[in-house]
Amino acid sequence: MRAAVFHGAFDIRVEQIPDASILEPTDAIIRITHACICGTDLWPYRGLGPYTPGWQIGHEWMGIVEDVGPDVRTIKRGDRVIAPYDFADGTCEFCRKGLDSACVQGGLWGFGHEGGQAEAIRARFADATLVVVPPSVEGDDALLKAMLPVTDVMAAGHHAAVASGVHPGETTIVIGDGAVGLCGTLAARRLGAERIVVLGHQPLRLELARMFGATDVVTTRGREAISEVLELTRGGGHAVLECVGSEEALSLSVSLARPGGTVGFVGAPHGSGQVPMQRMFSKNIGLRSGLAPARAYLPELLNEVLEGRLDPSPILNLSVSLDDVAAGYAAMDQRRAMKVMVRP
Amino acid sequence: MRAAVFHGAFDIRVEQIPDASILEPTDAIIRITHACICGTDLWPYRGLGPYTPGWQIGHEWMGIVEDVGPDVRTIKRGDRVIAPYDFADGTCEFCRKGLDSACVQGGLWGFGHEGGQAEAIRARFADATLVVVPPSVEGDDALLKAMLPVTDVMAAGHHAAVASGVHPGETTIVIGDGAVGLCGTLAARRLGAERIVVLGHQPLRLELARMFGATDVVTTRGREAISEVLELTRGGGHAVLECVGSEEALSLSVSLARPGGTVGFVGAPHGSGQVPMQRMFSKNIGLRSGLAPARAYLPELLNEVLEGRLDPSPILNLSVSLDDVAAGYAAMDQRRAMKVMVRP
Repeated sequence: MRAAVFHGAFDIRVEQIPDASILEPTDAIIRITHACICGTDLWPYRGLGPYTPGWQIGHEWMGIVEDVGPDVRTIKRGDRVIAPYDFADGTCEFCRKGLDSACVQGGLWGFGHEGGQAEAIRARFADATLVVVPPSVEGDDALLKAMLPVTDVMAAGHHAAVASGVHPGETTIVIGDGAVGLCGTLAARRLGAERIVVLGHQPLRLELARMFGATDVVTTRGREAISEVLELTRGGGHAVLECVGSEEALSLSVSLARPGGTVGFVGAPHGSGQVPMQRMFSKNIGLRSGLAPARAYLPELLNEVLEGRLDPSPILNLSVSLDDVAAGYAAMDQRRAMKVMVRP
Repeated sequence: MRAAVFHGAFDIRVEQIPDASILEPTDAIIRITHACICGTDLWPYRGLGPYTPGWQIGHEWMGIVEDVGPDVRTIKRGDRVIAPYDFADGTCEFCRKGLDSACVQGGLWGFGHEGGQAEAIRARFADATLVVVPPSVEGDDALLKAMLPVTDVMAAGHHAAVASGVHPGETTIVIGDGAVGLCGTLAARRLGAERIVVLGHQPLRLELARMFGATDVVTTRGREAISEVLELTRGGGHAVLECVGSEEALSLSVSLARPGGTVGFVGAPHGSGQVPMQRMFSKNIGLRSGLAPARAYLPELLNEVLEGRLDPSPILNLSVSLDDVAAGYAAMDQRRAMKVMVRP
């Protein structure tokens, strides 16, 4: 089968690899119909993250079940299934608490495991990991596209909103106008935030942010951004969604949180890990979140999409075939595309 | 009147200063009967914190109301009152939310304001700040002593326990065997923690920790402490109370938190503010807390003491007169005393 394989910085190739096959009795084989390139994939693509040449890549995908192992109970051949970016056993202490991203037997697709930018994939712990989608969605391309971001970026945005305690009637600040920041904006609106201030620098993305619920957008940086947002919100946000991952963004988030507020950080952290502890201490600003428990959120978010109440699909503004996946990476790297859908 | 005044590192003097007097209609004048020296006072004492020579010092106190301003409604002459370490207006957004430590007109006793290691004090926002104690306590020295830590360290320990989400049946880890760590231990037991592991290095304090509810004490440091605690708790604490304030202690706290757990940090942070972000991200470990909203907690904690269900008084293992306050600082600095009570 064909699959995207990482070979080094700026070098993603589609290659023939051995067909996906059942190795464990809890596995299922899925023919992938839709996948995505994630902002996280750009770290190794740009040579900035540790990623071993030869590893498959891609962790956002859905498809049709082709085969199941003998211990798979709830997933059947022919089902359309959607996967979170992480696989999880569904039985450990953390899975039972809804924190599948900390599963003791879990992992992320790609990163040395099977990847989602491929014709097919061996899905581990199929019953626990996959969610069956009703067959009524078949043929509804818009709906299928709207579902796809709940595999990862929509779950991440939702996690940031939940972890930062977005509440009706309060002010939410979103740092970042990338796919996760935009999904965080959607999530904050859904959870009832009255005012949503989005900080970013890309006019087209900020336009989308407004469409997704931003009441204000701020394009300044650093100290200027701090004064602007503190004035706009009369003292900062009750909830701040940090959707970038840089040290600067994290520090900015703490500066923009209101006393007693919380920063929900879902941008994969890069930097020394320095945070403005004095402000966190004197103003009781919390910092929570991390890798989203996407499996735990999937049924709720999927249902919202199926019911037509949630549609993050506008972030997917470029579609490529699997053979053209390298062009998709280049388009995202050069910011010609916000997020790329891959159709094997 | 006599009051303790900071003159520089290792130089606290009791001096005559002008009598406390009503300056604002919401003030009250309190004759102080009991005060404490706090671990926080040791920072300037050791020349490690910014504190201006000439400033009064001391933020833990209680006493008898001698006079009230014309706008004071609930506090009356002759009342015994107890104060939190912070004064607050009781009306701002943050006070209304129970976060008096972030009051927009608030501050800490000492730190350029009136200090509590003195014969008397001008209590600002008397109605909002002070809590009246029933007259039945008079003459009960043990009870009065047990009340005193709720002004600060007991509130801080409780805040760490609340913020870190101590729950019945779960494992709590307390970093630090100082007064706040010991109060955190009491708070964790009170909130129902099943297992309480206290990390410290002073045998007498760890003995007290056991008396206060610690099920295990750990005296190793660094990596050794991490392995020991992770083994003991099979993977870390659901709640970790960081009661030291050093960068090392904060980092240790994150290392000892279970995935999905929370570090409640109440040690005034010293250091660069570096935290193990990667672990916080990948394991969804939250960091919350800061300056305790002691006024918000005071009625609940005071009631617990009055009802005989809470007694942090064993941490006060030395008592000095106001004139001997310098000897009290020296005893705490040299670790001959854990916490010192001052009787003006």
